Amino acid sequence: MRIARTVAELREVLHGDPDVGLVPTMGALHEGHLSLIRRARDAHRVVVVSIFVNPTQFGDTADLDAYPRDEARDLELTRAAGVDVVFAPTAREMYPDGFATTVRVSGPLTASLEGAGRGSAHFDGVATVVAKLLIATAPRAAYFGQKDAQQLLVVRRMVADLRLPVDIVACPTSRDADGLARSSRNVRLSRADRGRARAVPRTLEATTAAVAQGAHDVDDLRARALEVLLAAELEPEYLAFVEPDTLEPVREVVAPTLCALAVAVGDVRLIDNTVLDPGPGFAAPARIEE
Amino acid sequence: MRIARTVAELREVLHGDPDVGLVPTMGALHEGHLSLIRRARDAHRVVVVSIFVNPTQFGDTADLDAYPRDEARDLELTRAAGVDVVFAPTAREMYPDGFATTVRVSGPLTASLEGAGRGSAHFDGVATVVAKLLIATAPRAAYFGQKDAQQLLVVRRMVADLRLPVDIVACPTSRDADGLARSSRNVRLSRADRGRARAVPRTLEATTAAVAQGAHDVDDLRARALEVLLAAELEPEYLAFVEPDTLEPVREVVAPTLCALAVAVGDVRLIDNTVLDPGPGFAAPARIEE
Repeated sequence: MRIARTVAELREVLHGDPDVGLVPTMGALHEGHLSLIRRARDAHRVVVVSIFVNPTQFGDTADLDAYPRDEARDLELTRAAGVDVVFAPTAREMYPDGFATTVRVSGPLTASLEGAGRGSAHFDGVATVVAKLLIATAPRAAYFGQKDAQQLLVVRRMVADLRLPVDIVACPTSRDADGLARSSRNVRLSRADRGRARAVPRTLEATTAAVAQGAHDVDDLRARALEVLLAAELEPEYLAFVEPDTLEPVREVVAPTLCALAVAVGDVRLIDNTVLDPGPGFAAPARIEE
Repeated sequence: MRIARTVAELREVLHGDPDVGLVPTMGALHEGHLSLIRRARDAHRVVVVSIFVNPTQFGDTADLDAYPRDEARDLELTRAAGVDVVFAPTAREMYPDGFATTVRVSGPLTASLEGAGRGSAHFDGVATVVAKLLIATAPRAAYFGQKDAQQLLVVRRMVADLRLPVDIVACPTSRDADGLARSSRNVRLSRADRGRARAVPRTLEATTAAVAQGAHDVDDLRARALEVLLAAELEPEYLAFVEPDTLEPVREVVAPTLCALAVAVGDVRLIDNTVLDPGPGFAAPARIEE
C-alpha cells in the first residue's frame, strides 16, 4: 500500500490508471467505511482511500478539534482491507496560501436540513473538497454512504453540473447491532448517551412501521416520531419528511419519502435517515377504485 | 474537422487523447483568436476550439444580445486554421434544468476592475464555464489572450486551486495596425467611434513612454493618461495601476505594473492593458548609491 501526501505524489502513483475506485473519508475509519472499501475493492483494479479531515466543512471549530483522528490505526485498517493507495494530504497541501476558490451548489439541496443547521459554508466545504479529490484522483467511481443522504445529493449535483467523468455510488448505511448508524463521532458518546442514541434509529424504525401500517399524514408521523425521541429525552434539531431527490417537504407519504433527522445527544450531533416507501397502493391513490 | 455539440460527443471524438490544446472562445473569431489557435496548432497533436457565448458571464442582457455571432464564418476560419475539433454546445447543454453549481474565485482578483464594473457574477460565470470546458476537454494546455489580463489571473487561480492538470498559456494581445486591441466587440463600433477608440491604446503607449522617460508617480501617470483619453472625449470606467499578480493598487511604478483600463466608446465597452516596466534601475532603488 502506498501513501501519497501530495496531489503530485498521488498522480505519480496512479499514473493515469483508468480503473480507480475512490473512497473519500475523514479518517477515524469504522465498519461503515470498510463496507465502502469492499464495494470499491470488488469493482476496481486500483482502490484509493482519501483521509482528510476537511476544515472548511466544519462551521464549528470545537467540532473540528474534537473530530477523532488516528492515522496509524486507519492505515492498518486500509492495509488489511487491500487498499492500494491512501491519499492523506495536509490542510496546507489542499488549501495553500492564496487559495481562493469555492465550488458551491446553490438552492434547496444545500439550504435546508444540514445546510440550515450547520450553515451554508458546510456544503461549500463539502462540494469544494470533493471536487478537488475527484480531480486529483480521476477515479472511475467514488463511493459514499447513504447515511449522509443530503451530502450525496449535493455531490451528485456538483458532479453532474461540472460534468466530472465519475460514477457516484451510494452505499447503504452501515449500522451497529442495535441499529445505530456507524459514525466516527459515535466514539465520543458517553455510555449513557450511547444508550439514548438508540432512540435515533428506533424513531426511523417506528416511522417505517407506521407507514407500513397505512399512516401517511406527515403531521401524524412526526408526532409519533417525536414521542420516541422524547422518551429518550431527545429533541431533534430537525426531523424532515422530504422528496428524496429535491429535498422538498412533503405533507403526505404517498411516494418514496426521505425521513431525515439530526439530534444532539450530549455534545455529539448525530444524523440518520431512511426512505419511507408507502408501497404501490399509495403511489397513485386516485386511480384505486376496486 | 469535427463539430461536437455535447460533452459526450466531444469526449467520444477525443477518446482521452493526452495531447489536446484548447482555445476557449465566444466565437466571432478574429485574428486574435487565430493567433491563439496557431500557438496551439504548433504545440499539440489535437486542437480543440470551443465556441460558446456564455450567458452567465454577462451581467447585462443587452450586451449578451448584442454580442456578435456568426457560426458559419467561425467554422470556415477554424477549418482553414487546421483546427481538429470545434466544441459548440448549446446553453442548455452547458446549463441544463436544475443546474446549481458555481465555481467562485473570491478576493481581490475578482472584486476589482472588471469585477467591480461588471458585477461579481461576471467572474463567477467565467470561472464556472472555464472549469466546465477544461473538465470536458481535459486538455494538456489552454490558451488565453493577455488582453483579458484579469480573466487570465482568475483562471490561473481557479486551475491552481482545483489542481486541474492543465497548463494555462498566456498569449500577447493581438492588435490592429493602429494599435486597437482586437475584440469581437470592435465590429459594433461606428466609424467615428472606431477613430476615437484609438485613444485607448494611445493612452497605454503614452504611459509606457512616460515610464521609459523616468516618470513613476501613479497620480502623475494617471493625469497624463486621462488627458489622452479626454482629447478623444473619453472617460474611463477605470484606469488602474496594479501589481500584475495580485491586482493590488500601486502608488509608484517601481516594479512591473499592470496598467489596465475600461472605456465605453459609444455603447461599446472596450478594455485594454499593458505591463509597465520601469527597468532594473527602479526595481530596488534603495540600493542604487553611485
